[in-house]
This record gives sequence, structure tokens and C-alpha cells, in this order.
Amino acid sequence: MRFDPRFQPNDLGLVSLDTIAYGGDYNPEQWPREIWEEDITLMHQAGVNLVSVGIWSWAKLEPCEGEFDFEWLDQLLDLLHEGGIRVDLATPTAAPPAWFYKKYPQARVVHRDGTVMTNGSRGMAAPSSPDYLRACANITRALAERYSNHPALAMWHVHNEYGAPVSDSYDEASRDAWRIWLRERYDTLDGLNEAWGTSFWGQTYYEWDEIPTPAVSATVTNPAMRLDYTRFSSDAVLRCFIQERDIIKEYSTAPVTTNFMALNCPSMDLWAWAQEVDVVSNDYYLEAADPRNQIKLSLDADLTRSIARGKPWILLEHSTSGVNWQDRNVAKKPLEMARNSLATLARGADGIMFFQWRAARFGAEKFHSAMLPHAGTDSRIFREVCDLGARLAELSEQGVTGTTVPADVAILWDWESLWAQGLEWRPSIDANARERILEFYTQLWEDKVTIDFAHPEQDLSRYKLVLAPASYLLTDAASENLKSYVAAGGVLAVSYFSGIVNENDTVRHGGLSVAVDEVLGLRIEEFLPLREHETVSISTTGALGEGQYTGTVWADDIVLNGAEPVATYVDGPKPDGAAITRNEFGQGSAWYISSRVMGGDLRNFVGALYEDAGVTARRDLPADFEVVERVSESGQRFTFLINHTVEQVDYTPRRSPSLIGDESAPSSSITVPAAEVVVVQE
Amino acid sequence: MRFDPRFQPNDLGLVSLDTIAYGGDYNPEQWPREIWEEDITLMHQAGVNLVSVGIWSWAKLEPCEGEFDFEWLDQLLDLLHEGGIRVDLATPTAAPPAWFYKKYPQARVVHRDGTVMTNGSRGMAAPSSPDYLRACANITRALAERYSNHPALAMWHVHNEYGAPVSDSYDEASRDAWRIWLRERYDTLDGLNEAWGTSFWGQTYYEWDEIPTPAVSATVTNPAMRLDYTRFSSDAVLRCFIQERDIIKEYSTAPVTTNFMALNCPSMDLWAWAQEVDVVSNDYYLEAADPRNQIKLSLDADLTRSIARGKPWILLEHSTSGVNWQDRNVAKKPLEMARNSLATLARGADGIMFFQWRAARFGAEKFHSAMLPHAGTDSRIFREVCDLGARLAELSEQGVTGTTVPADVAILWDWESLWAQGLEWRPSIDANARERILEFYTQLWEDKVTIDFAHPEQDLSRYKLVLAPASYLLTDAASENLKSYVAAGGVLAVSYFSGIVNENDTVRHGGLSVAVDEVLGLRIEEFLPLREHETVSISTTGALGEGQYTGTVWADDIVLNGAEPVATYVDGPKPDGAAITRNEFGQGSAWYISSRVMGGDLRNFVGALYEDAGVTARRDLPADFEVVERVSESGQRFTFLINHTVEQVDYTPRRSPSLIGDESAPSSSITVPAAEVVVVQE
Amino acid sequence: MRFDPRFQPNDLGLVSLDTIAYGGDYNPEQWPREIWEEDITLMHQAGVNLVSVGIWSWAKLEPCEGEFDFEWLDQLLDLLHEGGIRVDLATPTAAPPAWFYKKYPQARVVHRDGTVMTNGSRGMAAPSSPDYLRACANITRALAERYSNHPALAMWHVHNEYGAPVSDSYDEASRDAWRIWLRERYDTLDGLNEAWGTSFWGQTYYEWDEIPTPAVSATVTNPAMRLDYTRFSSDAVLRCFIQERDIIKEYSTAPVTTNFMALNCPSMDLWAWAQEVDVVSNDYYLEAADPRNQIKLSLDADLTRSIARGKPWILLEHSTSGVNWQDRNVAKKPLEMARNSLATLARGADGIMFFQWRAARFGAEKFHSAMLPHAGTDSRIFREVCDLGARLAELSEQGVTGTTVPADVAILWDWESLWAQGLEWRPSIDANARERILEFYTQLWEDKVTIDFAHPEQDLSRYKLVLAPASYLLTDAASENLKSYVAAGGVLAVSYFSGIVNENDTVRHGGLSVAVDEVLGLRIEEFLPLREHETVSISTTGALGEGQYTGTVWADDIVLNGAEPVATYVDGPKPDGAAITRNEFGQGSAWYISSRVMGGDLRNFVGALYEDAGVTARRDLPADFEVVERVSESGQRFTFLINHTVEQVDYTPRRSPSLIGDESAPSSSITVPAAEVVVVQE
Repeated sequence: MRFDPRFQPNDLGLVSLDTIAYGGDYNPEQWPREIWEEDITLMHQAGVNLVSVGIWSWAKLEPCEGEFDFEWLDQLLDLLHEGGIRVDLATPTAAPPAWFYKKYPQARVVHRDGTVMTNGSRGMAAPSSPDYLRACANITRALAERYSNHPALAMWHVHNEYGAPVSDSYDEASRDAWRIWLRERYDTLDGLNEAWGTSFWGQTYYEWDEIPTPAVSATVTNPAMRLDYTRFSSDAVLRCFIQERDIIKEYSTAPVTTNFMALNCPSMDLWAWAQEVDVVSNDYYLEAADPRNQIKLSLDADLTRSIARGKPWILLEHSTSGVNWQDRNVAKKPLEMARNSLATLARGADGIMFFQWRAARFGAEKFHSAMLPHAGTDSRIFREVCDLGARLAELSEQGVTGTTVPADVAILWDWESLWAQGLEWRPSIDANARERILEFYTQLWEDKVTIDFAHPEQDLSRYKLVLAPASYLLTDAASENLKSYVAAGGVLAVSYFSGIVNENDTVRHGGLSVAVDEVLGLRIEEFLPLREHETVSISTTGALGEGQYTGTVWADDIVLNGAEPVATYVDGPKPDGAAITRNEFGQGSAWYISSRVMGGDLRNFVGALYEDAGVTARRDLPADFEVVERVSESGQRFTFLINHTVEQVDYTPRRSPSLIGDESAPSSSITVPAAEVVVVQE
Repeated sequence: MRFDPRFQPNDLGLVSLDTIAYGGDYNPEQWPREIWEEDITLMHQAGVNLVSVGIWSWAKLEPCEGEFDFEWLDQLLDLLHEGGIRVDLATPTAAPPAWFYKKYPQARVVHRDGTVMTNGSRGMAAPSSPDYLRACANITRALAERYSNHPALAMWHVHNEYGAPVSDSYDEASRDAWRIWLRERYDTLDGLNEAWGTSFWGQTYYEWDEIPTPAVSATVTNPAMRLDYTRFSSDAVLRCFIQERDIIKEYSTAPVTTNFMALNCPSMDLWAWAQEVDVVSNDYYLEAADPRNQIKLSLDADLTRSIARGKPWILLEHSTSGVNWQDRNVAKKPLEMARNSLATLARGADGIMFFQWRAARFGAEKFHSAMLPHAGTDSRIFREVCDLGARLAELSEQGVTGTTVPADVAILWDWESLWAQGLEWRPSIDANARERILEFYTQLWEDKVTIDFAHPEQDLSRYKLVLAPASYLLTDAASENLKSYVAAGGVLAVSYFSGIVNENDTVRHGGLSVAVDEVLGLRIEEFLPLREHETVSISTTGALGEGQYTGTVWADDIVLNGAEPVATYVDGPKPDGAAITRNEFGQGSAWYISSRVMGGDLRNFVGALYEDAGVTARRDLPADFEVVERVSESGQRFTFLINHTVEQVDYTPRRSPSLIGDESAPSSSITVPAAEVVVVQE
Repeated sequence: MRFDPRFQPNDLGLVSLDTIAYGGDYNPEQWPREIWEEDITLMHQAGVNLVSVGIWSWAKLEPCEGEFDFEWLDQLLDLLHEGGIRVDLATPTAAPPAWFYKKYPQARVVHRDGTVMTNGSRGMAAPSSPDYLRACANITRALAERYSNHPALAMWHVHNEYGAPVSDSYDEASRDAWRIWLRERYDTLDGLNEAWGTSFWGQTYYEWDEIPTPAVSATVTNPAMRLDYTRFSSDAVLRCFIQERDIIKEYSTAPVTTNFMALNCPSMDLWAWAQEVDVVSNDYYLEAADPRNQIKLSLDADLTRSIARGKPWILLEHSTSGVNWQDRNVAKKPLEMARNSLATLARGADGIMFFQWRAARFGAEKFHSAMLPHAGTDSRIFREVCDLGARLAELSEQGVTGTTVPADVAILWDWESLWAQGLEWRPSIDANARERILEFYTQLWEDKVTIDFAHPEQDLSRYKLVLAPASYLLTDAASENLKSYVAAGGVLAVSYFSGIVNENDTVRHGGLSVAVDEVLGLRIEEFLPLREHETVSISTTGALGEGQYTGTVWADDIVLNGAEPVATYVDGPKPDGAAITRNEFGQGSAWYISSRVMGGDLRNFVGALYEDAGVTARRDLPADFEVVERVSESGQRFTFLINHTVEQVDYTPRRSPSLIGDESAPSSSITVPAAEVVVVQE
């Protein structure tokens, strides 16, 4: 199951809510019943209109196998309905009850090193375990039967954060399912042996049941096998979702979702997953150690919108303040929660939800913030939660829901390539794919250039500029797609260690960069990775202007084949060799940058790309002043001005596409106070 | 089994020795018999009067199950008795013989990740294994029967360093014992489910045999379950001790001890353990990497005396020079061993013993120093050992044994709180409980203020000042105890992240700091942990004087509720918020400090506490000049002056309680040469 | 099986090739058959005359147990023979087929912590598994029967890199074989118990089957047991080799080799191994992170020549450019490959081979460089490969093959001592044996002083100077050998932590340094390891000149017993104690240096040793200009001048033995351009 370029997302989802969803996970089974009424009163005060219920309730709902207790949930849903709060009803399959583990110990997850995972925590059982799948089907069917017609029901929330903390397992059921999956993928053992290159290191398989799981071995495991096991594991988990979704759909017409973790659960291929849900949902938590963590939050939102193929989505979990599972769980500053929430809304979300409504007094997450903190209602957090609720209601009124986010630029993103590049024994451990993507993204974010993430095989013709900061694995189809895009007039920029292997992690016959050679007008004779802390000087010219960059991590021995060098190595492993090139190809142009450049150097490089592609940037505004637009089909435009700085910022609306040198002040100006958000409606 | 505030320690123990015990572990089975006579001659030369015998002798004493060979031990004890050396006779259960592991492989210790521990090293079997317990009982009974009336016998040394290297095991016998322990603790599953908060993450148990051990899981395990497993493990090991003690007591009236590791074996609740022994014994080894490791040695001695409820105790192991198991095993400098030994004596020990008498030529510890080193008698170490023996004999003559150590200040110490705070997913990994205790302790040590460690539930009325640098877990009883203490006129100082949870690691309803809110006159709305390397400026006033502190690691959002702010945040996450407060409560006062301050800032803060409480400090003397007193019931006073500096120090006896500004020189002065110890008797 | 001082290497091997072997691993089963002809054409172009074939071919040759398919190999060998390329034919036992693991799961390797190693990678099965041994015998016999008389056959290549990635295993077959090995070594359990010192920590064994493997335990395992398990593991793997060798010898007269990894597989005792092969072969790869990695390459070559007892050997694998398994796989610079290859030749190799002929497109090593890179023939690498082939042919013509490498200096090297010192719980983790050897080696390399590595028990009389930078374990025989060497006029220099234990890791009765006390004229009373980053000042005099050294890591408390102190500690743990000593003993002298000195200090110290021993050094040339000689029996002399610098160097032939102050220029001078190699023939 993988990305399908012809897939059309459906239009279910939040439209039926007719308003911005606001609320959080609600776990009333952790509280005495007398608290429930207070909760509903306070939810009203906060503007909450949707809560996720039952995520951890399996043990309460099915105290022993096949015996159900729905009474408390009946009461709760009735109470919520009476209170006008709608329900995102969960299947509780992320946390099988203790009786399950006692009865089916063989369903426990097995780590790659053979360690068996005990219960007493959270985390599903082995994804391919028939016992687990049957138990999931039973509780899902019971819930669907009972609550499909409950008036409080707005949406189904299948499971929780599939893929975290369990994605791959090395138990016997997984091994058996893996062999079936391989048979479906390759049909014959000859096909498998060729795809995996088993002739290397003498690994040829002659029977399907000779194939082990890629558990720990004496040294590095066959990389194509490991890549396939990651694919298999994503599919195996996705099949768990599909089973539950299909059972629900037998009974219910409400949309079905599950909460992704677009950035933080790297093991699931969300291009494939997003094709199976009625509405895309996502969880995101700030990285406390990063003082500019608003950038990754935006990246995550753009990625989520992209896998939703541009449709509105729901932020199903974020936090009102600090979390509990990082090394140092920094609390959010005043107004920071609102900036986070509105930035997410600006990037296409139609729902803003939290983990969780009321802070838990016990368990592993008692130090996680909540809408209603341990300190109670007389607290900064609860006051800000109420303010945000009011503001979202106002934006709902103004018609933000359903609008979309335009973008002229795309960054290529492919989980399969990230998985493949992440395996052992690559030329340099410093050649980190996510690092390059984040660095390019950061520059565009500072330039107020909104981007989409794009699958390398998708139609790219709507974009002026496509960046490939980390596309180690490119299929033949992707290679052709990039050529077509540039030939038709697009501008493409490729960073180092891209286009190296096909879908089997195999270098193509003919050289290291066959997949991009033609469009880039060059070939790479040899990788020249740098030592730790080693730097190279790069002399720029032409479209980049006369100047000097500093590179780290990587260089290439480039043989030009039509491309024009716009920067040259001054020193390092290949003095005088081309460092950055530009190639005219068809109606467009393709750039290649062979080293890791940062900061001002990257800013200059990206500026040249904007010029080449005609992309409008806003470098006249402070870097940490965020600007994003949502547009309705009728052309109604909401401009979100988010001031992450400690000074007020005067904003003037968009200017001509030229980004350089236009110093003439435009007419009207809007002042955004420090730390605040202004939404301009046109 | 836990701390009992009504417990009265008995008076057995070293009184029967009538002298300071001096000697070490003696493992003659490692040597040819002709060496034994030489050993006894050299022991006399060194002043040795007690040796610990048989700690590792199980395999020699019981070559196969149920067959005993005592001949060599008979001879040895006779020889020692003839030589006038008394014996601390061990049960050898810390090292089961190889035949035991062959016959009972299921008794092997299982690590939390499932790894099974092989023999070939040391370390007991699984503490709850019925096979291990039965084998222990057999060898113990055989020894007790045979030697109870031997005239050399002075004391029983059960096992060795219980809890190290084995404290918890995840084998089947442990799992079964754990369920029984839980049943005893909670009586019903409802009680257990509520205490553990199993409704969080859907972990409700409906049958006792559904409960697993908290072995590794896909993510973080229920913290209350883990805390209970640590309690259970401490109890399970303690039950091993109790079984052996009770068997010995059937035959013998000699006191029974076992050697604790107060600081270095964090897994045993020594408040509970110390209630079961006739005399408290302890092992302590310097941390070579710490250039001022004399401070932790003092801390360990104070802690050991405190769990002995102030009674004299025995240092059963320390080293004459370097050890062998640290990264860099720095040798002791000339005179350092004597300083260490006499500082320990000063802090209440009536026995000074070493591991070991004669350096082993083979095995894992051959590079550990000994009383008789590899270099033999013509060596600095052996000469210093003889000098120390003579000095201890002299102090015995003067009547040091049986005297006690007075203290005006207590620092709270509770293993349960340390365990709880040490679990995963706390607000900040930098909020390290032992770090705060050590830092406060160090300041008081430099100020020559002797302290006791106190359990939070014990009677504190004898202290002028009580410090709570790290009391994350406080029971309701402890909370009440602290209030009573302050109400009656005590001074209490609480550092951050204290009073947060009850005994089930549960935040109390009503807020984060309910247990200390009332006495402190404030509430904590939110924790504000700092980023790594982040600092905050704190402006002080009032009792602290006008000044500026630097804080790291932590800050709080404090809501004052009667307390007076004596310091305020200048910057950081809550500018202008209270940083340090003082609250008058009843007859006393309670301070709160919400950030990590160090060095001169902490010195200033603690100085204000002394003033408030009327505690006498000696800041006129060098920091590394140690002063401690022992006092007899009749008022005889031994003042130990221990000069850890490289200059001589002139010491004048104690002055008036005012520590600041009294520059007038007192009358008589005592000169303590560099590196030496003077004991003044009054 | 261990070093035998009476062993005489045979004279088989490369003599039969009559030329310098040049080529690489050739894995044609990874390529379509149409590529094979192209390969042979390109091999001719490159000057290749030998290829290693079939290393990973087990699965191709024996698709299921007992059924063989040799057709493709027949064709390949015929094709190579027709093409005039000779074959180093491998037994493929480094990679058992998947069917083997399916059928014999009990033969899988078990890690020390109990983890079972899966297939899907490379690495042999458990070395003592009877199933593995039987399967190896079958495939080896089938190959030997079929190809012993094939005209292409030049040599047998048994297995691949024995000991990496599998050396020790903790499976049941290993446990059983271990007990048999122990019985052979010790005959009685009394002998074993005494050798291991099992009386320490109560580990006495009364039955052979009570002895476990030294798998993970609660704390540190008996060190003598672990040392023996390392010996056993080296022997168990060696027995795998011997089985295959003996089967081959039933059919074939061609020489049998296996590729060692002298520096990089620390688990095999190559002194013993080298006694079993017809010709010594070795693999070596540069450490990319080390900017002067040519030095370790030379060290490895000298070590390989030394275990070959001075006979010519084959470099069976190195790389044309970067490898794939290091963190940052830096490519070789232009001409670097030739320098590496010729430096190896200079140090006694008669064969220069690579992994591998053609870069693999798939599998774990696709980013490893090859003779024919991904970029094809139009590449720097292939051009340099052809140049090197031509140059080696020329040197063959000139008669380099069969010549030997003279050396006046030896450095002691003993795997048993390295193993023993590497165990846990030594006085300091900074006392790293390989570090000291490398540092001394580096100084001699810079001084153009060629060295041999010598076993401590071998006849040393041919050397002027013997260095013992790291001889922790010395047998009684070695102790006597060193005394005899010095008594007869040799110069010996011993660095700290040497001569401490005997072959059972036991400190001798009488002190820490009994094995070297007499020859050094001192005894060590106590080790005085330094703290991390701690330095000591050392004041030199006498033969070292008046000066000051800086020491780190170590100091000793030395008691002089005839030795003259030539340097004294100024500070540190033993101010005024002796730091460096010289002792006249018989006709020779013995030095001791008790701290870690580096750089100029070590240079000065070693210079004094040269003076004492009459060793000629060349300190007038740049440090990175390498000079080595090979000499024929008839006195023909090849001087290899290898310029690793970026400047040209003018070289004048060797001068008088005096290294200091001789500034007079000699007559003829040879210019070696930057990065190039000149071979001077006399």
C-alpha cells in the first residue's frame, strides 16, 4: 500500500461540524462521576464543542473477554449530548486489557533483539497477531453496533497514534505475515532474490519459509530486506486500522479518522495511510529544547495538509503548555498556545484539540499539561483556553472552515526514501535527510513562502519551484516525473545524495546519480564526504553573485554534462571542481548543490531559486514574523499574521513578486503586537 | 516493611566489644595454610581485633548440596581465637556455589529486559526463589549450629551488601511473590487499581494473576506499579535477611548485622532494614573522580548514623587506598586513610574495618587495595595501617566508644521519595534529588554544622532547622508532621519539586503542592523548568540582603498565599514572580526556594536560615577543615579536627551562636597540621 | 594453540606466482553472465593477475543440503583460465545459506547477553556447532574434489576474515566444547580452580558440567575465566579453519590461506593462526577519521609480516577509495591508493589485492569503492588502478618478490596480554595498551626506524632495541626471555602497567611487578593512576638531558633497587619519586617509564633509547616522508621513498648511525614529488 497519484480525497470530515472543532481528549473514567457535570460546565465556559472519548477504555468496556460493560459510557455520551458537546468516539485498541496479555502471551510485541514487551504500559500487541486482530474486531463491532446512532457522535477515532510506540515486531505471527506480504509483492522467489540482491553475501532464498525477519544479526542486515520490512510493518499496522474502519462502516456513516503523528512517527507511510481515512487528523507536540520550535510546528502542519491532499484536517492533539516525556518539559509562555493553535489553523486545520481536557492525577502522564490544569480554573492556562475558544468561534463565524492554503513551492517528501537513507552503512552519518529538509524549510518559512510537501511521483505542475533536499531513493516513475516537470518549465533544486537508488535500494547500472543525471546535466563520479567538523570553501558566481559559501558534510566529484557551474570548490577533496550547478532543461531549469550550506549561504542560494522561478518572498519582515493565507473557493482571503518576536511588527500587505530592492512603502499597514496574532480578512 | 516512627533501636552491638573494632574482611581460603599464622602475627602488629570471615565460603563449606566441610573453618577460628582476634562470622549467601546454579537454573536472576544472569561472578540468586531461600536456610543453620558457642565469635555478618549487585529480578518466582505482596498491601484489586491509577492508559486488573512484573514494555510503565515493585524488591531482599537472622537467633545470642551501602545501594529502604539488625553496619568507598570526596564520605556516615537512630555503628568496609571498580582508581594520599577513618569515627562509628586484610592475587578485585598490600609489610600502606590501629586503641582508652553525635539540623531523606522521583517522565531530568541534597549538605559541612538525616514522618522537634532539598513524595502523615514541626517553632526550608505526590505517585486533588501549600503560605500554579544551560536572575531582599542570585534547572509560577517574597525573578519564564519566600506559620517559619542555586548564592541563603533558626556555624575556618563532636552521656566531649587542606589550621573552640561579624579572637587555639587529625577531649 | 618459538614458516605461497599478485575479490554471481567477458578484458587492461572467487557462493553452489550446482563456477574458472587470470578459490563458509539456518536453528550464534543472531546478513554460525562443522566439511570437500586440478587454481582462500563478525558464541555447543577445552588445558578441576582463583567470590567448581560460559552476570565475571574463554574462542574458530585446510590437503597441493585482519579483529591469536597457513594473508582498511592514517596502515603491515615470521605475505583486501562501514567514509585522494599499496609492498607484501573488482549495485556494501567503480572505466579510480597494475609489474620484473624487510628494533605484541588488559576493573580505563603501542610506533615511523613486532617469548637477540609499551601479562618464560636478552647486551624499554600478571591474570606473590623487577632494578609499591585530564610534571636529567616532560594517565610509587632515576616527578601523587629509570643489567640496559608521555617528550625519550642502543634514525627528513627497505638474499636493496606530504622532498641515502647533530650533506640526492612514491634499487 503506497502513494497513489490518482487518489482523490473525499469530502467528508469536518464540513459536517460546520465550525472549528475545539476540545481535547476526555478520559472521564479516571474521575469520580461527580466531576463529570463540572467538566461539562467548564467545557462550555471554554468554548469546547468536541471531545475524544474512550481512547483508553478497553479494560473498562470489556472486563473479560466477550463481556461488555457500556453503562458508564452510555451515561457519559448522554450527558455530553445534553450538554451540547459532540463526541469523537474512540476504539480503544491502543491499549489491550491485562486479561488479553495473560490469555495471549504470544501476541506480545517482540523487539528486534528478541526482547519481549510486557504489558503494564501502553502500546498495542503485535500488529499481525490473529489474536489481537480478533480481539480488536470484537470490541470495535460492539462499539459500532451500540453507538452508531447516538446523537452525540460526530466522528470515529480509531485507535491512537498508530505506529507509536509499536510499529515493527519480530514475533512469529509477524514472521508469517511477512512471508505472505513478500509473496504478494514479488510473486516468485526469483523476483525477491533479484530485488534484494541476495547474491551479495550469499543470502539466496530457495523456499519462502527460509526467509527470516530482519532481526539482529552478527552484522548489517540486507538493506533491501530491511526496507521491505519497514514497508511491511507500515502495511501491517495500516491493516489493523482498515479492519476497524470497515467494521465501523458496516454500522455508521460518521467519518472515521485516526490521529497521525506526521513528523514524530517516522515508521508509517502516511501517503498511503491518508488514502484510507475520511478526514486526516494529526498530533503534534513542540520540541522544548528548540527555542524556535514554532518552525517545526509549521512544517508538521504543512506536511499534514499535504498528505490530506490540501483538504482541511484536524489537529487532534497538541498541548496547552509543557509535556512530560521530553528531557526538560518547558512550559509555554503566555500567548504561546494561541500562536501555536492559530498557526496550525492558518496552515489548513479546521480543528484545534488538545491532550487532554483535565490533567491526570496519576499515571505516566500526570505532568503533561491540560486544558484544565492541576491548578484548576484560577490559572493562566485555563484563562487562555477560554480566550482561544472564543477566538476560534469568531473565526468560525467569519468562514475560515473549509478554506485552503495556496502554495507556489513544493518540497519533496517520501517516507520510503527517508527509511532507505536511514539504514546503516551510508557514505556519511552526517548526511541526514531530515536535517536538509528542515534547513530548507526554515529558510522558506522565514521568507514567508508557504510550501506544500509533495510526493516525488505526484503531479508537480502547479508549483513554480520544487525542492529536493533529500531524495536518496527515486523510482523510475519519480525520475521521469521530475524530468517532465522541468521540461514543462518548472524550476527544480536538488541537494546532494539524491537520486542514488531505486525502490530496492539498488544503485542503477551506469552510475551513482542516473535518476537525476539528465535533468541536472551532469554525473557524479564519486561521493566525497567530509570528515567531522571539516569545512570546504565554495566560490560563487553568476546567478548566485560573486561570493563565498562554507560547506560541510559532503562534496561530490561532479562531471559536467551540459550544466553550468555557478559555484566551485576552492579547497577540500576536489579543488576547482563544480560545487553548485544550474542546467537548462526543456522550458525549465534544474539546480544541484553538492554540499551542506547553512544560514546566510543557504539564504543566498534560495534567493537565487526564487528569482529563477518567480517566487515572491517577504524578506523585509522579521524572520520570526509568520505570514500565511487561507483562501476560500470564492476568493475570500484570511491572512494570519503571527508575531513570534518580542517587539511589535508593522505589516504591509503583499507586494510585487520582486523580492529584492523594492524599498517603496506600500499604502496600508497593520500593527501586530509582540507575541500576538492578527487575522486579516479580505 | 517501612520506617516506623515508634521504633526503638536496641543496645546490643559494639558495646560488647568494649573497644573500637579494627580490622577487615579476611578470606584465608584464598591462601595456603602456612600464610595464616603470618597473618595473625601481622594483625597483632597492626592492632587488628576483629575480622570478617567466611563471606565467600559457601562453595568451600558445602561442596555439594547438603554435604558440609567445616574442618578448615574450625581450624581457622581456633587459630584466630588463640591469637586473640575476634570474629565477625559471615553467612556466605551472597555467592551461591556453582552446583546451586546447575541444579536450580530457574533461580537465576532475570534482568528487566529478560536477560538471564549467569554465575561465574558474584551476586545472589533471585531473592524470592524458594530454592535459593531453602539453600540459604540450610547453610545458615549449619553454621549457626556449629559456631554459636565458639569463643572467637563476636558478631554475625549475614550475607554481603544486600541489594548489590542484585536487587530486583523479573523471574517467575519473583512474579508470584510480587502478587502475594500486592495482595497483602492492597487486599482488593479495587484498592490496587485505585492506588496505581490503572484507569490511565487502560490497565485495570480484574484478576491477581493478570498483574505482570514491570518488565520492559513498549513505552513507560505505570509509575505507581514501578514504585511498588521497588518496595517489593527491597522487602523481598529484606526477607532473605530476616530468614537468616531468625535461624541464627535460634542458636546464638551474638549480635547480628549485615553491611549496608547507605549511599551506594539506592534500591534498599534502609529505614526499614535498620529496624531489623542488632547493630547497623555500613560499607563506603570514596569516589575517586571527586577531588573533595571527603564530603560524601561524611554524608554517608551521617546517613548511616541516622538510620541507626543515633546509635553507634560500624564501618564494616572501606579501603586503605584505591579501589578497582571505578574508571580511574586513584590511590589515597599519605594520611588520607587516617582522615577518612577518623572522620567516620567522629560521625558515630565505633568500628573501622576494611575490605580486606590481604590483597587478593587473583579474581575480579586483585587491584583493590588492602591492609596488607601486594607490596607487603615494607610499604606506606601497611605502616599507616599500623599507625591507625595504635591511634584507635588510644581513642578507645579515652572512652570514645558509645558516645553520640549531637546535631541541631536535619535534612529529610526518604528512599521512597528518591525512588519515585527517579522514575521516567518527570518535568526535567535536571531536577536531581540527590544533587540538591548533596549541595545543601556540602554547604553545611563547610560551615561545620553537623546534621542528621531524618525521615519526613519522624519527630523533628529536637531540631532547630529542617531542610527538605528533595521531598518529591510526601505522605499525608509527613505533610502533617512538617506542619506540626513548624507550628511548634521550627524552621523549615523546602526546595523545588517537593510535596508533589503521595505514596502512590499521585498528585493530590487541588494542585501540585498541596502537601506543603499551607505551611509555605503559597501554591504552585505551574512548574517552569528551564532549558539546558539556561539561567535566570533572581533579585534578593529582606532577610537575604539586597543581592542577585543565579538560578538554573527550575522555576515555578508561584501564587502567594500569605508568604512573603524574599527574592523575585528578574527574567526567565516568569519575570517579577516570587522566587524565594518565607512564611510565618504558628511559632515557626517555612521557606521555599524555587530554583537551583549554587555556591555563594546557596551559602547566602543557608546563612539566612541559620539566622532564622539560631544555628551556630563556623565560617571563620577554611571550608575543608572538618569539625565534628561526639559526646558521652556524662558530657565528655571529643572534638575531631580534621584538616583536609595542605596548610596548617589554627582552631579556636566554639563561639557564640552568632555567625556573622564576630571578629574578636577567642582565647585558646589548637594547631592542626596539614592533612592531619587532632582529637580534643574535654 | 598458541605461539611456538620453535616454529619455522614454510616456503610455499607466493613464490609459485613468480610475480606480485594484483587483483581483488571477484563476485561474478552478482552479475549477468554477459558482464563476465567484459570483466576479463578490463582485468587485463588493469594488470590483474589473481582474483579471489567464490567467497559468498555457498547458497549458489549448494542450493539445498547435499545438492551441488558447480556449472556456473566451472564456466567461470575456465573463462578466467582462458583469460590468463589465476584464481584464489574460496571456501564459502563465512556465509551459510538460508536453508542451513532454517534446518539448524540451534547453530545460530548467541551473544553474551543471550541474544540469538538471525541470518539475513553475513557471519558464520556458532564455531563449535557440529551441524556447522559438518556442513562446512561437505562443501569444502566438494570444492576440493572438483577444482584441485583446475589449471586456473593458484591458491585456496578458506572462509573470510575468521573472527569477524563472529568470534565468541554462548550457545550450548560452545558450552560443551568449552568444557572439553578446559579439561584438555587443566586436566583436573583442582588445576582449573587454582588457575582461575575460584576461591575468590566463592566460585569453586566440583564437577566439569558446573562450569558455565562467561555470559552476562550480575557483575564482573572471573577474569581468568574470561581470558580462557577468549583463548577457547580463538581456538574454536581456528579449528574450523584447520578442518577445512586438512580436507583441502587431501586433494590439493596448492597453498592454503585465509585472510586475517591483524589490527582489526582483536579476538584471534594470530601468532597461533599464522602457524597453520601456507602463506599469511591480511585485510586492511584505512581509518577515515584519522588524517594520518598511513601510519596505522604501516603498523598493520609490520604486524602482518611479523606474524608471518618475516616471510612475504599478501594484502588480500584493501580499498581503492572510501569504504562503507565507517561513520564518514572519506574517499582517497589522487595517488593515495598507490602510496598505500606501495607502502604495504615496502613492508613485505608480495600481493596487492582489493575488495573488490566491480562495485556491487546492491547489498550492504554498495557504497564501498572497487577497482571498477559505479562510475565505470572513465573514472579517476580505474585509471589509477591501471597505473598501479603497470607499476607493480615493473617492480616484479626488478625482483622485489621474495625479498625481506630488515629491522633493528622490536615492539612486543601479545594478543593474550591485550585480551587480559582489556578486561574490566583495571586500575584505570585510560591505561590503554593499543594506545601506547601506537604512540611508540608512530614515533619510530616518523624517525624512519623500521620495526618488527615480537612475541615476548621469542628470540630477541637479533634486535638492538626492544620496546614493551604494553606488556601487562608476561609469562615466566617471557620474563626470563627479557632478562636473557638484556643480560646479553640488549636494550629494553618498558612502559607502565607491564609485567603485572601471569598467564592466569594472577599477580605474582611478592609484588606488582615481579616479572620485570630484576631486569629493571626496582619494584613498584603502588600504582598511582591519575584523574581524567590530570597532568604531572616530570623533570629529566642524565641521558634524557635537562628538561621537563608532561605525564598523564599513570604514575607509580617506585622503590629503586639498583636502577638510576633519569627523571623525577615534580608534582602529582608522588612528588620527588622516580618517574623514568635506567638499569644496567648484564651487558645491556633496561629502561622504565612510569607515565604516559606524548609528542616531543616521547620523541626525546625514544631518542635517548636510540643512543643507548645504537639505532639509526632519520630525523632530518619530514615526519610524513616514509622510508622502508626490502633486501634480497643476495643483497639487492629496494628503498621505498613514500611522500605523504604536499611538498616535494629531497632524499639522501642513509648516513652514519648518529642521529643528532650531523648536518653535513651527503653526496647524491633523490627528489620525491609531493604525494608520490619513488623506489630506489641498489
